[in-house]
Amino acid sequence: MTQSNLPLDATRLWADIMALSDVTDPARPYTRRSFTQLFLDGRALIAQRFAEAGLTARIDTAGNLIGRLEGRNPSLGVIAIGSHSDTVPSGGRFDGIAGVATGLEIARALRDSQTRLDHTLEIIDFLAEEPSEYGLSCVGSRGMTGALDGGMLDLSEPGGETLRDALRRVGGDPDRLDRAKRDDVRAFLELHIEQGVVLESQSLDIGVVTSIVGIRRIEIVFEGQADHAGTTPLHLRHDALVAAADTVGIVRRVAERLAGEGSGYFVATVGILAIEPAASNIVPGRCRLVIDARTTNPALTARLVAEIDRESEAAATAARVRRSAFTMLSDGPPVACDPDLQRALREAGRDLGLGQIDLLSGAGHDAAFMSRIGRSAMVFVPCRAGKSHAPEEWADRDAIATGAAVILQAVKALDRSLQKA
Amino acid sequence: MTQSNLPLDATRLWADIMALSDVTDPARPYTRRSFTQLFLDGRALIAQRFAEAGLTARIDTAGNLIGRLEGRNPSLGVIAIGSHSDTVPSGGRFDGIAGVATGLEIARALRDSQTRLDHTLEIIDFLAEEPSEYGLSCVGSRGMTGALDGGMLDLSEPGGETLRDALRRVGGDPDRLDRAKRDDVRAFLELHIEQGVVLESQSLDIGVVTSIVGIRRIEIVFEGQADHAGTTPLHLRHDALVAAADTVGIVRRVAERLAGEGSGYFVATVGILAIEPAASNIVPGRCRLVIDARTTNPALTARLVAEIDRESEAAATAARVRRSAFTMLSDGPPVACDPDLQRALREAGRDLGLGQIDLLSGAGHDAAFMSRIGRSAMVFVPCRAGKSHAPEEWADRDAIATGAAVILQAVKALDRSLQKA
Repeated sequence: MTQSNLPLDATRLWADIMALSDVTDPARPYTRRSFTQLFLDGRALIAQRFAEAGLTARIDTAGNLIGRLEGRNPSLGVIAIGSHSDTVPSGGRFDGIAGVATGLEIARALRDSQTRLDHTLEIIDFLAEEPSEYGLSCVGSRGMTGALDGGMLDLSEPGGETLRDALRRVGGDPDRLDRAKRDDVRAFLELHIEQGVVLESQSLDIGVVTSIVGIRRIEIVFEGQADHAGTTPLHLRHDALVAAADTVGIVRRVAERLAGEGSGYFVATVGILAIEPAASNIVPGRCRLVIDARTTNPALTARLVAEIDRESEAAATAARVRRSAFTMLSDGPPVACDPDLQRALREAGRDLGLGQIDLLSGAGHDAAFMSRIGRSAMVFVPCRAGKSHAPEEWADRDAIATGAAVILQAVKALDRSLQKA
Repeated sequence: MTQSNLPLDATRLWADIMALSDVTDPARPYTRRSFTQLFLDGRALIAQRFAEAGLTARIDTAGNLIGRLEGRNPSLGVIAIGSHSDTVPSGGRFDGIAGVATGLEIARALRDSQTRLDHTLEIIDFLAEEPSEYGLSCVGSRGMTGALDGGMLDLSEPGGETLRDALRRVGGDPDRLDRAKRDDVRAFLELHIEQGVVLESQSLDIGVVTSIVGIRRIEIVFEGQADHAGTTPLHLRHDALVAAADTVGIVRRVAERLAGEGSGYFVATVGILAIEPAASNIVPGRCRLVIDARTTNPALTARLVAEIDRESEAAATAARVRRSAFTMLSDGPPVACDPDLQRALREAGRDLGLGQIDLLSGAGHDAAFMSRIGRSAMVFVPCRAGKSHAPEEWADRDAIATGAAVILQAVKALDRSLQKA
């Protein structure tokens, strides 16, 4: 399919993505961390584009930015398209934003072709899909699906601000989270870059996601004693980093063994490890690390957790430090995408003459939470060399527009078929 | 000895130390990092006290704050007393400051007793004795002794500012460092808390330092690839933290073996380990760590370095990452304190009826650099449970005043004896 065949404007869609990519910490492109001023700047841009497209923009109590186009028959409920505009530190230009811009472009394409849906259409920029400084990811989609509880709101970033206060700061209302919870979303569709190499290596246009891995995050804190690195003999030390370093090695070894069993996709990562006080001449007194474990088979994660629990305690004892925390920060189960929506996406791909394949998602997505309140599915588009969460992240303009066309086509079909369901 | 016998004012000396301790990052007492606004605030306080004591205050081109009391015979040169006012992060109230305040109180005690020395007396607050954000310690005493070179000035902190620019910012002049180098210092004396348990456990008043350990700092950087923690299978990862964690374990094991050989004091520490990008869902792409090795026997450090060089390279290979740096950040040799100054301190202690012992210093001090340009020696005073570089750091008022009295007595004796030398 060439660009001229597309039922939407690839150039306009691309321009939105590029405009958002300029809203970055200039020292670390591409960084637009949730809850920062840059994040709010990005949202102001999105809200402006929503308004230009004729959408009514609002922020719900869970901090999600929502553009809404009333349907001919509002009682039918909502078809929603969305993703997120926040990034990881030094992340890419497409993860999240491509899905938000897709929704926006679909709204404009419907307007341009004077197509009015029976269902109300909502374009959602979910708050803080990436792990935030508060230790939680998918804050907005958790809020929209009733999965954001008080304990999570009490989480705080290193500076001490609670997620509750941060949510208020970006326009949410933590005291009225129940108002964000939805029961009117009939279908949720999300376009995302694949973040893997399957589509690119097989020269395919789209992947229809069948399931999304479950993600469990565990925080471990070791507390020893911050002693002088010159005057404290080795046998008198309580070095928290020694225990933490040991644990990093254990996580890798256990994860390799579980992944090799062949009983499901499995990965585990230590992506955060922070020392206090962090000076070359002080024995580390405290060390915090976060383990991220993902699988399609929750039994594997349970085994990882049991082994790490035992082994990290042993590492603490060997280093004469205390393991003061072994905390489950979050635990999302694996999710199967809705079969009817998957079918609508496959049919749209076929109608458009695309090369397509069914895929599993190793990454978590807002679509996983949205499946808790209704039908939810995803389309993956190819990205270069599978790179993501890095500045090199890249997806071609027409690849994104093609995925967006699939969603547009599926939305039109669902606008009819969901009325019969 | 009771307070009333002291030839100086213990309460006034203590008040200076307490006043400085209030100049701290309130979120992390006691933190007054070199080159920060707080550090400059602390120095403003010291400069004011210098002026009140009748000292002429200046900042030399190496950024040292110097209070000067002209002697009766300036051609004899300078007797200097000093230490530093910067702290490690979450450090204590005494490390460094006790030595600066001691010098200040000695100047006041001389004035109060209308004693004018033949030698000029200088009280020095050396710049950045603790490892700074620029990866270097003892910046000021290096500068004063010709040991601060252009390569060091090119070091930069994580935000990108060079040490050269930072030095300018605090009143130094990196283009005229030669003016800071001194050839007129006849004796340098430094009081410091012991940072160990010998004096306290044996109920002694002072320790006369015989030698100061050599300190070598090595930076290792591992560069892998920042990949998505959900979509990158373990066997395709280039995880920089896995190599770094391995290296932490190796440093500890090798250090324990070398310390156990009995051929000299030996400790090694990894006190800094920083990940990029540092997010729970990104495979660490880069990891930097700093090793601090200290000994009275440089052969042990050489063996540590050789082993870590080999083993960290192997760890990089195993984790499929590149060891992009293995850099010696600094290398100070062990230093013997001047025998004549040691003798003057011991005699002063004996005259004052104190319990004393000879000690080795496991910590580096400005006195080690000062030994490069003249006679240099140190007095240790007891501190509680050997704790240092931590908020619990504590030394009693009278313990510090007693050590200060020893230095005052030694200064008076040296003012005479150095004229005959």
